[in-house]
Amino acid sequence: MKTSIDCIPCFVRQTLEATRFVSVYPSVHEGVLREILRCLAGLDLDQSPPVVGQMIHRKLRELTGNPDPYRNAKEHHNRLALEMLPELREQVKNSPDPLKASACLAITGNVVDLGAKHGLTENEVIANITRTLSEPFHIDIERLRKAIDRASSILYLADNAGEIVFDRLLIEELPAGRVTVAVRGGPVINDATVDDARAAGLNEIVRVIDNGSDAPGTILDDCGLEFQRRFNKADLIIAKGQGNYETLSDEKKNIFFLFRIKCGVVASHTGFKMGTNVLTGTSKTPG
Amino acid sequence: MKTSIDCIPCFVRQTLEATRFVSVYPSVHEGVLREILRCLAGLDLDQSPPVVGQMIHRKLRELTGNPDPYRNAKEHHNRLALEMLPELREQVKNSPDPLKASACLAITGNVVDLGAKHGLTENEVIANITRTLSEPFHIDIERLRKAIDRASSILYLADNAGEIVFDRLLIEELPAGRVTVAVRGGPVINDATVDDARAAGLNEIVRVIDNGSDAPGTILDDCGLEFQRRFNKADLIIAKGQGNYETLSDEKKNIFFLFRIKCGVVASHTGFKMGTNVLTGTSKTPG
Repeated sequence: MKTSIDCIPCFVRQTLEATRFVSVYPSVHEGVLREILRCLAGLDLDQSPPVVGQMIHRKLRELTGNPDPYRNAKEHHNRLALEMLPELREQVKNSPDPLKASACLAITGNVVDLGAKHGLTENEVIANITRTLSEPFHIDIERLRKAIDRASSILYLADNAGEIVFDRLLIEELPAGRVTVAVRGGPVINDATVDDARAAGLNEIVRVIDNGSDAPGTILDDCGLEFQRRFNKADLIIAKGQGNYETLSDEKKNIFFLFRIKCGVVASHTGFKMGTNVLTGTSKTPG
Repeated sequence: MKTSIDCIPCFVRQTLEATRFVSVYPSVHEGVLREILRCLAGLDLDQSPPVVGQMIHRKLRELTGNPDPYRNAKEHHNRLALEMLPELREQVKNSPDPLKASACLAITGNVVDLGAKHGLTENEVIANITRTLSEPFHIDIERLRKAIDRASSILYLADNAGEIVFDRLLIEELPAGRVTVAVRGGPVINDATVDDARAAGLNEIVRVIDNGSDAPGTILDDCGLEFQRRFNKADLIIAKGQGNYETLSDEKKNIFFLFRIKCGVVASHTGFKMGTNVLTGTSKTPG
């Protein structure tokens, strides 16, 4: 999807929040903000919104000299989620529809959006999950089930650290041996990289690759050739999070998006209300 | 007060809202937004926030070719407020402290902030007033009363159209013959100009002047010489609205500000909580 001018005020707010997260120096906050305002003034709105996220966080890493400012937060979120994993796995196993239960929890992991929050406690995470599970879901599980049955090659695009532990529940329900999980090629916000996939233990159960890009989404032109090849070859792509939706919604592939509608622009693009937890496919699975 | 970098996301949001209010053309929305982003990138943060409001709305008038895009809204707000005036005046007369009652209603007029809302109905305005009167007030009425008793020359700085009708209630409680009301020198947002002062009937009871500036506040350097002279000569200045606070809070004059704290930056600058309705003086009135 393209960027809306309604994204611009949000980019500016996100820039300020992010720069304060990664640096205590007001001169850095001001410098980053001014540079991003200049970039936004000339922004190509035909690009998808994560292009700006990539730009903001490259600038933050450059100006702070910190190649991975969210590293500690990501590790904290992985640890919290891992502590909850055995109980959540039990929930899935005891569910009448483990695929659906695990898909809902995977979306919930996206909702928790450990994002820019420093000291999130386990209780807060549990409260978020409980609240989210009581909110509207739009889950097209039968179409996904059929697509999984037919697919010989499934590419699972992860989103954030912490959340990637929740993804494991859904990945465990997919046919072993046919799944590849892709993470970001480099640190950007709290998005999952190979370190986080390893922390979630995914490398023990599936093949894990990185996409070669440091965008908070999947900008295909910016991804590595190996990733592009796997993307093109996959029969089924399961894409987590709004950033992956924003960058891949126009692709002519068999993609299922699992995410929460977090802003008005995506709400209007999808036709779902803000706050809806969605599992939806772009292209029709034949039959 | 100076501009905070926290004002920047708010300026961007306001730009988008205002440009949509004054034009239906997406090309105008995008053009104004890009130009304001460029200006914000190089903004002198030592200036007060209304400098940006002035810049945004000059640009909007230039690009739309409309010298007063909020004219209809202002007339609508004046009419609504005038319909309520007799009943509100009755309330003030029957109050045990008419000065305090009229001051509270004058602040309430600022709260109603008919701002960018097109089709505000009388019922909505009444609901806003009722809600506001039930919210926290911090009214330093005894200091104001003393200052009024001592002043031989009072300058009353109005804020918005519609609100200026509420101001009339307070102005009627001030000593006749010693009051001058100043409005903006040219249209900016829904701020009151001489047309609105006339609509409120203020020219029949006090001297009305304009300040020679089209800023949504009182940027002294930008005001006309006649206004500057009156400002310097006045013993007491009563300034309505957050814009007048933002531009005059550092002046070494006997100024009483009547406004609602509408944003976190001003809340932190004043020490009052967001949403507080305030009547407060900058300089101490001796004794």
